[in-house]
Amino acid sequence: MVRIGVDVGGTGIQIGLVSNDYHIIHESSIPTRTDLTFDEQVRQIADCIVSTVRSAGFTENDIESVGIGIPGIASAKTGEVIKCTNMGWFHVPFRQVFNQYLNKPVHIDNDANVAALAESVAGVSAGTSSSVFITIGTGIGSGIIINGRIWSGAHHIGGELGHVIFSLGGVPCTCGNHGCLERYCSATALIRMAREAVEDHPDSLILRSADMDPSRIEAKTVIDAARAKDPLAVKVYDFYIDCLAQAIGSVINLLDPEVIVLGGGVSKAGSFLLDPITDKYPKYVVFNDQTLPPVKLAVLGSEAGIIGAAMLS
Amino acid sequence: MVRIGVDVGGTGIQIGLVSNDYHIIHESSIPTRTDLTFDEQVRQIADCIVSTVRSAGFTENDIESVGIGIPGIASAKTGEVIKCTNMGWFHVPFRQVFNQYLNKPVHIDNDANVAALAESVAGVSAGTSSSVFITIGTGIGSGIIINGRIWSGAHHIGGELGHVIFSLGGVPCTCGNHGCLERYCSATALIRMAREAVEDHPDSLILRSADMDPSRIEAKTVIDAARAKDPLAVKVYDFYIDCLAQAIGSVINLLDPEVIVLGGGVSKAGSFLLDPITDKYPKYVVFNDQTLPPVKLAVLGSEAGIIGAAMLS
Repeated sequence: MVRIGVDVGGTGIQIGLVSNDYHIIHESSIPTRTDLTFDEQVRQIADCIVSTVRSAGFTENDIESVGIGIPGIASAKTGEVIKCTNMGWFHVPFRQVFNQYLNKPVHIDNDANVAALAESVAGVSAGTSSSVFITIGTGIGSGIIINGRIWSGAHHIGGELGHVIFSLGGVPCTCGNHGCLERYCSATALIRMAREAVEDHPDSLILRSADMDPSRIEAKTVIDAARAKDPLAVKVYDFYIDCLAQAIGSVINLLDPEVIVLGGGVSKAGSFLLDPITDKYPKYVVFNDQTLPPVKLAVLGSEAGIIGAAMLS
Repeated sequence: MVRIGVDVGGTGIQIGLVSNDYHIIHESSIPTRTDLTFDEQVRQIADCIVSTVRSAGFTENDIESVGIGIPGIASAKTGEVIKCTNMGWFHVPFRQVFNQYLNKPVHIDNDANVAALAESVAGVSAGTSSSVFITIGTGIGSGIIINGRIWSGAHHIGGELGHVIFSLGGVPCTCGNHGCLERYCSATALIRMAREAVEDHPDSLILRSADMDPSRIEAKTVIDAARAKDPLAVKVYDFYIDCLAQAIGSVINLLDPEVIVLGGGVSKAGSFLLDPITDKYPKYVVFNDQTLPPVKLAVLGSEAGIIGAAMLS
């Protein structure tokens, strides 16, 4: 028996066969087609699952379950997608429609939740029963695992750490509010901080690495310049790390999971991210004289979407 | 059979017999004695339970369980008090020592968690399986209920909403950090905001109600002046309500419980607090086009400590 994990993204849909020991044994993908009707999109996913299963030498009878991770909100209970803007899905009965094309147990959840589950079952937090997974990319996503299960809230709208208020009246956010956490802790935030800083310091390595064009500064530009000990980059990066440490301390003060897992693009900085974070976050925990959750880097990378989806139950 | 709830406070220890339908059927109290050794303190509590049970016409055999709520952190699993500064208890085996004096099942937890449980079992959130209880007093306390159980974290240090960073680099907090949520949302915060505001507006009703002495301004002074439509008080109170609405929106974005419950001194303002909060908090929820958790006022008041402790299991 194999479990199927489906990772729905804005440009492509990844489909994987996952073994009972959490390895992807076969994988394929189809482009995201928002021009199709919902029924056609779902049918396409179901068809691709069947052909993927067959090309791996299995039959439909070998499929134990199908799990789908989506960039949006869904009811794990009813199998309804509540809101998935990228796909144009709003209050659509995913499970019901999918089962018309492939009659297998279907589970659906948000992609950050799915990645959190993957790490907690097969990744860096394997064996823990509670964890908070924070994905640091364009925004900040998060997934909460409590008692071994995803906690996405009573109305499936939780896990949005990125939009917790972090700086009252602060930087405007894409959500319409001000001072959201992701405006200070995402890759986008690091880029903003660097662009502001280079205005008065055009001599910085940050700007030189970006061909003197602030619009070409990326998170990696700043991180590489900080590694090279460029004074401005070090200053910007230290401030960014301090923000992230305060965010992690806040999560611990509220939720105190067994472990905090960092994923997403910025986490690729590895120990250059993890070491200063590990030094700093205890300062922001109230009961920091107690055992604290360690902060770890995600290990499953882009496979987390498929593995976690396959683990949904 | 009766359950015993014990509410340990800085000045007194309340002991109550709680019926199966969550009513306190008999109650007594003893003063908090920090001059005694831990063993003597525990023995005193056990003795008082026995005498309270007897004076209510029961015997020790009628005691089903004993629950203790403490202003500190404890391991519900081991029955150890990890830290309770008010009582001078640090890493003490409460259950073990207590059972030497009274051999009954003993459960122990933090007082805000206990109050959260009480409201979720017998109070305003009765019948829900998830809730966040926020107590607005000198500081901000909180208790999280998920799947019908208290979630205090993997190391029992969670539920500290008051020390989530809310205003990066903001007002210094008693915990040593800056910009903690309780510096903007507690009664103390409202008082601070009012004291700052009257400096430039000594004609305000706020100051007149405090005999022109800023140090005599209390939360109620500001709330009463805002009710009386004093312009400065209205401005201060509106800002405070907006902070609280942002805090509630943040809790929903992260945890999305079935209901948010507000307790503590400030919640005594009743609908004058609840109505503007209810108007404002949806603005701060990312998915505010979905069904949102309602915000409700706690109903058990000071009885929550005893009732919730008795409900611990």
